[in-house]
Amino acid sequence: MLSVPEAFAQILRTVQPATPRSCSLFEATHGVLAEDAVSDVNIPPFDKALMDGFAVRSSDVPDGTGTLQIQEVIYAGSVPTRSLEAGQTSQIMTGAPLPEGADAVVQIEHCQINEAEQTVQIKTTPVAPGKNMLYRASVLEQGATVVKAGTFLRAQEIGALAETGSPQISVRRTPSVAILATGDELVPPEQKPEAGQIRNSNEVMLHSQILQADARPVPLGIARDVRSHLREKIQEGLKSDFLLLSGGVSAGELDLVPSELAAAGVKQVFHKVNLKPGKPLWFGILEQEGRAPCYIFGLPGNPVSSMVCFELFVRSALRQYLGFPDPMPQPVSARLTADFQSRGDRPTYQPARIDWSEGEATVTPLQSMGSADLHATVAANGIALFATGNQLYQSGLPIDTFLW
Amino acid sequence: MLSVPEAFAQILRTVQPATPRSCSLFEATHGVLAEDAVSDVNIPPFDKALMDGFAVRSSDVPDGTGTLQIQEVIYAGSVPTRSLEAGQTSQIMTGAPLPEGADAVVQIEHCQINEAEQTVQIKTTPVAPGKNMLYRASVLEQGATVVKAGTFLRAQEIGALAETGSPQISVRRTPSVAILATGDELVPPEQKPEAGQIRNSNEVMLHSQILQADARPVPLGIARDVRSHLREKIQEGLKSDFLLLSGGVSAGELDLVPSELAAAGVKQVFHKVNLKPGKPLWFGILEQEGRAPCYIFGLPGNPVSSMVCFELFVRSALRQYLGFPDPMPQPVSARLTADFQSRGDRPTYQPARIDWSEGEATVTPLQSMGSADLHATVAANGIALFATGNQLYQSGLPIDTFLW
Repeated sequence: MLSVPEAFAQILRTVQPATPRSCSLFEATHGVLAEDAVSDVNIPPFDKALMDGFAVRSSDVPDGTGTLQIQEVIYAGSVPTRSLEAGQTSQIMTGAPLPEGADAVVQIEHCQINEAEQTVQIKTTPVAPGKNMLYRASVLEQGATVVKAGTFLRAQEIGALAETGSPQISVRRTPSVAILATGDELVPPEQKPEAGQIRNSNEVMLHSQILQADARPVPLGIARDVRSHLREKIQEGLKSDFLLLSGGVSAGELDLVPSELAAAGVKQVFHKVNLKPGKPLWFGILEQEGRAPCYIFGLPGNPVSSMVCFELFVRSALRQYLGFPDPMPQPVSARLTADFQSRGDRPTYQPARIDWSEGEATVTPLQSMGSADLHATVAANGIALFATGNQLYQSGLPIDTFLW
Repeated sequence: MLSVPEAFAQILRTVQPATPRSCSLFEATHGVLAEDAVSDVNIPPFDKALMDGFAVRSSDVPDGTGTLQIQEVIYAGSVPTRSLEAGQTSQIMTGAPLPEGADAVVQIEHCQINEAEQTVQIKTTPVAPGKNMLYRASVLEQGATVVKAGTFLRAQEIGALAETGSPQISVRRTPSVAILATGDELVPPEQKPEAGQIRNSNEVMLHSQILQADARPVPLGIARDVRSHLREKIQEGLKSDFLLLSGGVSAGELDLVPSELAAAGVKQVFHKVNLKPGKPLWFGILEQEGRAPCYIFGLPGNPVSSMVCFELFVRSALRQYLGFPDPMPQPVSARLTADFQSRGDRPTYQPARIDWSEGEATVTPLQSMGSADLHATVAANGIALFATGNQLYQSGLPIDTFLW
C-alpha cells in the first residue's frame, strides 16, 4: 500500500499547474500570481508630505522655531508652483508633493498662521531633514519586483499591485470542483432517513471545504448504485477541473465507482493509502484531447475520512493546480497537553484542538468515535499526526499538526 | 484622544448583530449560527458496520476462528431481513445496519466463503463485542445539541448540521460593505499617475480585505474633493450595511468627509484613536426609519493605516454584526526573534512575520518606511503590538501579535 509521502509525490507529479488567465485585481483575491510583477513608478513618486502642516527647508528652522513667509497652499493631487528659497514655506496637505527646496514638514498643530502678513510662526522640536515626509522612491524604485510569481494574493499584495501599475494580472485560480456522493443508503439532508439510510452530509461538507480552499464547487447530488445513473453523473462531473466522488471506493461488492471511472477513460494513479482514517482513497486522471485534464479523487464515504483526505490530498492537488511553489500541507509544531497513547498499524490523523499562549503552541487530541464521528471535528481546529505503532507520546512532546 | 480599548468598546456598543436570516447549508460557509441546532436523529441511527465483511455474534467466534452459515447480504441503504441465531452470519457492507443478534463485524480479508455450502470460514484475531461497528446513538443522541448559537460555520459544522436534520438554518451573515476612496490626488490603478497623483490602491485592497472577512464588497470608485460629488457617492454608500471611506479624515482643509457625513444624518461616534498607524480613524452610525442602521468608518488614506484600521476595528465590527460571541481581534502570543526598540507616544502596530517551529511561535517585526509602505506588509503575515513609550523589548520576550 502506498505511503502518505508517496501519495503526495504521485499527486504532485500528476497534477499540472493551470494555464494562467488574466484577471482584474477585483477578482484576484486568493489567486496565485503567475508572473513577477514589476513597478512602473517610484513609491512615493515624489517627495511626499506625511502630515498636514508646512513644508520647510530644515536649515531655516534647525531648532524648531522661526517665522516663515507663506508661498502657496499645496493640496494632495496638485503640483507645487513655487520652489522654496531661504525663509519661505508653503502650506501642505498629507499626501501632497513637497515643493523644490523643502526637505521637511512641520505639523499644523505646531504652526500659528498670521493671515494679514502671510507668515507662519513655527514652534516645535528641532527639525531634521526628512521629518514628516517620505523621499521619492524610498519605499520602492521603478522597475523593482513588487510581487513574485507563485505568491498567494492577499489584500496587501493586491494593494501593492494596484499602486505599482498592475491592474490586470496573470493568475492561476479557481478550478471548478464537482462533488458526487454515491450510495443507495444516502438521502438528501432535507429528508428524514428511514431504516438503513443516512443523510448525505458529505456533499455540503465538501462544498464548504472547496469554498474554504478558494475553489468553485459544483454539487451534483447523489448517484445511485446503478451503473447507468452513476455513469451519467460521472460524465457530468468530468466536465469540471476536478471531480470528487464521495463513497464507493472501499472493498464492497457495490463499489462500482472504480470500474465506471475506467469505462469513462479515467486512468487510475493509485488506490489505497496507508493512513487512518482515509485508507480507501482513490486518485486518477482523465487526459482529454484539446483541453486540460480532469483530476479525480474517490474519497471514502465516512465523513471524517472524507474530510481528512480532502484537507491532506485534495487541497495539495488544488495548490499544485494553482501554482503554489510549495503545495504540500504545512505542519504546525505543537506540544502535547497530555500523554497520548497511539495505536494501530497506520499513521493516524486525530482531530485535535490547537491553542496558543505565551509564545507556545499546544495540542490536545480529541476523543473521537472514529471516522463516522463528525462531531469530534466540530470541536477541533486541526489534526494531529501520530506515527504507526503502539507508542506513548509524553505530555510536552512537540508533534506535527495541521490546521483546518 | 480615545484609547484602543475604548474605541473597541464604543464599536461593540454601537454595532447591533444583524437580524438572522434563513439560508441553506450551501450558502452557510463562514456564517454564524443564530440558534442552537439539535439533532433529529441518533448518530448512527442503527448499529452500523465500519468495514466490509461479515456481521457476527462475537460469542460465536471469541477466539477469532469458526465456520458460520450465511443468511443474506446486507448492503448500505438496505435493511436486514433476518436476525442471527448462534452459528449464523450475514455478509455486510461498510455503512450497512447490523442484523439483530450481531454485535461485531469481521473484515472481508479474514473470511473465506464457501459458495456451495453457503458458509464462511473466519480466521482472525479474537473478536470482542463492538469490533468494526458503531452502536446506535454512540456518536450523538437524538435531541442533543449539534452546533451552538454563535458558532462560526466551517465545513465540519456544515456536515454535522446536514447529518442531523438542519438543511436550512438561521445565520447572521454577509453584510454588504461599500468602499469609497476620496481624494483629488487619486487616479484609478489602470491610469499612469501624473505629477502629484497616486493610484487608488486602497479600493482593491479593502475589497480584498472585505472578501477575506467573508463580507460582500461594493466598490464605489473615487469621490472627488467636491461637495456635490462626495455627497452623491456617500448617499450611494449609505445603502449598504457598512460604508468604508478611505481618506478624507485627517486634519487637512479639504477633508470634507466628516461634514458631508453629518449633512447626510450620520452621527459621529468617535474621531481619532491613540494608535500608530491609524490615528485619524473616524466612526459613526446612520440610524434609519424602518431599516437597519448603516455603520460608517472613515479610514486614513495611507494604505498601511487603512489596512491596520480595517483588521483591528472594521473586522471587529463585522464580527459583532455577524453575531460572534467574542468579536475582538484574538491575539497570538509569540516570542521576539531579536531585540526591538519601540519609540513614540502611541501604541504601535508593526508589520511582522510570525513563524512556528518546535511548538514555539516567534515574531520578527519588519522594517517599514511607515504608513505609506505597503511593501513591508507584503512580507508580513501579521502585526506585532508594542506599547506606548521608548522601550527595549528583549529577544525571547512573548508579545501579542495579530495574524492577517
